[in-house]
Amino acid sequence: MKIYADNAATTKMSRTAIDAMLRCMEEEYGNPSSLYTIGQNAREILEKARNEIAAVIHADPREILFTSGGSEADNQAIRSAAELGKKKGRTHIISTAFEHHAVLHTLKRLEQEGFTVTLLDVHEDGLVRPEELEAAIRDDTCLVTVMYANNEIGTIQPIREIGAICRRRGVLFHTDAVQAVGHVPIDVAADQIDLLSASAHKFHGPKGIGFLYAKKGIRLTNLIEGGAQERGKRAGTENVPAIAGMAAALKEAAAHMEENAAHVRPLRDRLIEGLKAIPHSALNGDASRRLPGNVNFCFEGIEGESLLLLLDDRGISASSGSACTSGSLDPSHVLLAIGRVHDVAHGSLRLSLGEDITAEEVDYIVQNVSEVVAYLRSFSPVWRDLVSGKTPFIL
Amino acid sequence: MKIYADNAATTKMSRTAIDAMLRCMEEEYGNPSSLYTIGQNAREILEKARNEIAAVIHADPREILFTSGGSEADNQAIRSAAELGKKKGRTHIISTAFEHHAVLHTLKRLEQEGFTVTLLDVHEDGLVRPEELEAAIRDDTCLVTVMYANNEIGTIQPIREIGAICRRRGVLFHTDAVQAVGHVPIDVAADQIDLLSASAHKFHGPKGIGFLYAKKGIRLTNLIEGGAQERGKRAGTENVPAIAGMAAALKEAAAHMEENAAHVRPLRDRLIEGLKAIPHSALNGDASRRLPGNVNFCFEGIEGESLLLLLDDRGISASSGSACTSGSLDPSHVLLAIGRVHDVAHGSLRLSLGEDITAEEVDYIVQNVSEVVAYLRSFSPVWRDLVSGKTPFIL
Repeated sequence: MKIYADNAATTKMSRTAIDAMLRCMEEEYGNPSSLYTIGQNAREILEKARNEIAAVIHADPREILFTSGGSEADNQAIRSAAELGKKKGRTHIISTAFEHHAVLHTLKRLEQEGFTVTLLDVHEDGLVRPEELEAAIRDDTCLVTVMYANNEIGTIQPIREIGAICRRRGVLFHTDAVQAVGHVPIDVAADQIDLLSASAHKFHGPKGIGFLYAKKGIRLTNLIEGGAQERGKRAGTENVPAIAGMAAALKEAAAHMEENAAHVRPLRDRLIEGLKAIPHSALNGDASRRLPGNVNFCFEGIEGESLLLLLDDRGISASSGSACTSGSLDPSHVLLAIGRVHDVAHGSLRLSLGEDITAEEVDYIVQNVSEVVAYLRSFSPVWRDLVSGKTPFIL
Repeated sequence: MKIYADNAATTKMSRTAIDAMLRCMEEEYGNPSSLYTIGQNAREILEKARNEIAAVIHADPREILFTSGGSEADNQAIRSAAELGKKKGRTHIISTAFEHHAVLHTLKRLEQEGFTVTLLDVHEDGLVRPEELEAAIRDDTCLVTVMYANNEIGTIQPIREIGAICRRRGVLFHTDAVQAVGHVPIDVAADQIDLLSASAHKFHGPKGIGFLYAKKGIRLTNLIEGGAQERGKRAGTENVPAIAGMAAALKEAAAHMEENAAHVRPLRDRLIEGLKAIPHSALNGDASRRLPGNVNFCFEGIEGESLLLLLDDRGISASSGSACTSGSLDPSHVLLAIGRVHDVAHGSLRLSLGEDITAEEVDYIVQNVSEVVAYLRSFSPVWRDLVSGKTPFIL
């Protein structure tokens, strides 16, 4: 059996999205800035895509800026808000300890430039507390940036509450919604979101394309200077094929969102139940306030990386956490942020299910993870020490 | 007849490039940072592409950084060199007046941050004089950035001479080679280039992807912070399909470069000869030191935009200058830089021929441009004043 269970890292493109791209690559290859017919055809495809994407998140098309992906959108959103804040002498930013590195590293750079950053605690359940966020707001706070859903443990933050607090307190609110867009309903108006980042390849669209929603009136700072594309806020020939592919994928995801969630959520819960039966294991993050397809466990006494490689041998593609940091030997900053100790955080497994997952596949995963965990523990010195009572069990 | 003669704006993707992309989109869709098989397959495709691209420009694969396109590469190259210079107290940059806006606007931002910029004159032939460049170098010069071939008039700069001067004087040399890569042979070692920008969609590769060559030892500054991709210098999930498409297109372009140029160059010259016969017209830029497919003319007494629209009606896709600035009513900064007066610069036409251009198509272009120019002049008040002697002819 072959099961791709790492949809949080990237997804397989949908046929609709591939076909939309192909049409642009084969026929409508013009530069949308060109005045002649095939240029203007490309322009139409571009603006139609912008309209479709805006509609899905309840935005105005003029509020959608195309970027090369989620990381670029995060960088531009935060840089823009910081620049606006600085002009008013407001240089304090609030975020959380378990953001994606596209956010955390941008904040680190801003700290070097004189900004002050408060990282909120996300508690054991992987959720930010709105009241703690509100308490952290200062007179000089210019931005709150809290991710919509965490990329490792899938917990969905109280975005609407946070949006309301920020609006009331006159602070810009950015959310990295890379894991959420296309998977849960998003309404930037109702949620009072000022800036939102998204990436197409997380919802069966192409890689190398994403978008930044920026509420009307928020002046963006360019990351990339040059031509006058994207109202002068993002230079470079527009990636029309990828934009068309992204719009097709997002429309499709939005149209099937409810039925997809209704199908995946019970299978996610079946997977959670199955893995809970493994002794000294624990689910990471709240069991219900999480993405429909996200399962993230820690197993005491093993190394996550060995687990992945053995699961790969059995046809299961999974990860220990974020793909963006998989080269690193450090344990996940997300798991540390929710209070997992170093040793436990090392034994993590993220399974992010696709919309076509079946009960049979879930059972196959449960059986194989159980077997592999038992096998790895059978020769783990850490596990031997735990079993012998030399070191105490944590989970 | 349908003739796409705006290959400097963007090119149609080659079948090979589309197929390379499709394979990644349909089958090898893994995230190259993932440890399991399909992730590692994607990693292999990525590194193979890096090797192939490096080989074409005589670089080491570790010197190739993938970006979302030429503009991003330009921005990152210049920002990096500026940051390195600043650390040594060197804040003077030399460039030319006719660079692409991705360069000029980045330099403008750096000026606001305290850098000093000298823009060299490019003379009437559209060429920089190496001796003038050398004379402009100061003790505090940290960077020379001169484009390889101009995007509007196609003139190829004396890159090897400039590279030698910069290396001898200890100044970093960046070249925006977006129009040159895949069209003329480039050897970053022999040319002594330190930083080079390229964009795939200019050589029949996909949009939304490019690369930055940075000589070993040059520390790059991130434009996009986040994950550890691209040795930590460019965050965001790698756009493997587009990178594979770019490598396929570049390999193909390099393999056929000589024969393509041998085919296109005489047809370019035939087109130049044909258009020269139009009264009060002039070729912009040197007749021979230009890209094999580039033709750029000024016709006195007409508006370039009307010319384009009427040519479009006759099946010819052409431009007045850069697609990146086509929304603007200002005349081309490139034509002004080579000394064309405002009125003459307004009547410009760029025809950038594809490798499959035929003599018949060239003749069709000549005939139609001649007719349309005559037609537009027939009711142009500016032309009437010229003909009546009220204002003097310039061309």
